[in-house]
Amino acid sequence: MAHVTIEWTANLEGELDVRALMEMLAADMKDRSDGVFPVGGIRVRAYRVDHYVIADNAGPEDAFINVDVKMGAGRSAEFRQRYFDALFARLRDHLGGMFDRRPLALSLYVKETEGWKHNSIHKRLAGTD
Amino acid sequence: MAHVTIEWTANLEGELDVRALMEMLAADMKDRSDGVFPVGGIRVRAYRVDHYVIADNAGPEDAFINVDVKMGAGRSAEFRQRYFDALFARLRDHLGGMFDRRPLALSLYVKETEGWKHNSIHKRLAGTD
Amino acid sequence: MAHVTIEWTANLEGELDVRALMEMLAADMKDRSDGVFPVGGIRVRAYRVDHYVIADNAGPEDAFINVDVKMGAGRSAEFRQRYFDALFARLRDHLGGMFDRRPLALSLYVKETEGWKHNSIHKRLAGTD
Repeated sequence: MAHVTIEWTANLEGELDVRALMEMLAADMKDRSDGVFPVGGIRVRAYRVDHYVIADNAGPEDAFINVDVKMGAGRSAEFRQRYFDALFARLRDHLGGMFDRRPLALSLYVKETEGWKHNSIHKRLAGTD
Repeated sequence: MAHVTIEWTANLEGELDVRALMEMLAADMKDRSDGVFPVGGIRVRAYRVDHYVIADNAGPEDAFINVDVKMGAGRSAEFRQRYFDALFARLRDHLGGMFDRRPLALSLYVKETEGWKHNSIHKRLAGTD
Repeated sequence: MAHVTIEWTANLEGELDVRALMEMLAADMKDRSDGVFPVGGIRVRAYRVDHYVIADNAGPEDAFINVDVKMGAGRSAEFRQRYFDALFARLRDHLGGMFDRRPLALSLYVKETEGWKHNSIHKRLAGTD
């Protein structure tokens, strides 16, 4: 499984295409992870941050995009480093010149966890194979 | 203390009774944990996920419900396994045939943590005893 | 970097000044941490909790405020204990008599993590020095 949670500050509205960002992340995990992330377990969501204070609270254009990834344990440290280094580089590319146009903080955090799960999305995927 | 956070995708609106799910979880922790979770520390919240991309982004009916539990450290590994195995089974039962009616991913994660707290709900509970 | 996430239950609307709380937390990290938190990395956000069940689900006035801090690893255990003990005390003071006026649970959790980041807010801050 791979859970991805995006937060973006509301002052990016109109400049950031949140759907495109979510689709980019989901497709990246599906197509560029050598099958490490089962497709049926990819869940990307995004929350708009309407209430925020950034840095010294003096830059109304200050914005942030934060990406948290939660995935099952067991992937090698080597895979984690390589895949997420590359993902972060692609995230920066995806956002393009936004860092030059305004003060923007992008962050990506990854944690491993185990839990309980039950999932009938795999069945839908198998049916369309 | 026990913090529970539910996320549900907006396409479950009308099919998932979020209030009933929250009440089921709070009551379960209160009544079925052998007093391990102090009643005054139970806090269940739910966030509707309005922006999401799931799996291969090709199943508009794909949905997810994710449950994160954060609780104080110190419960035994045996309790954790037994209680959350049972809770997850009851969660699945509670959702009933929803897994057959649509592609749905249910997940439950538990983590332990310690922090700082101050709580006057215990006083309200003591007053109504 | 320091990420702060506040959750407050919707029944505190009109009683809790969320903006003042966010500003207090951001200023505290900027001014009282002996420079441990770089100013350009401070990101405080708050989410209103519209759906919740607390304790025995019998106290409509029950409310909670939860504060999660995520910061880079490497600060000493001594700093963590001292700074967050003091921050929590200031949080309680900031909320004043609210604990007496209603059943209220305040909590603060801190975790350390490492991730990937790119940030042009530092440039804005340097430019205004």
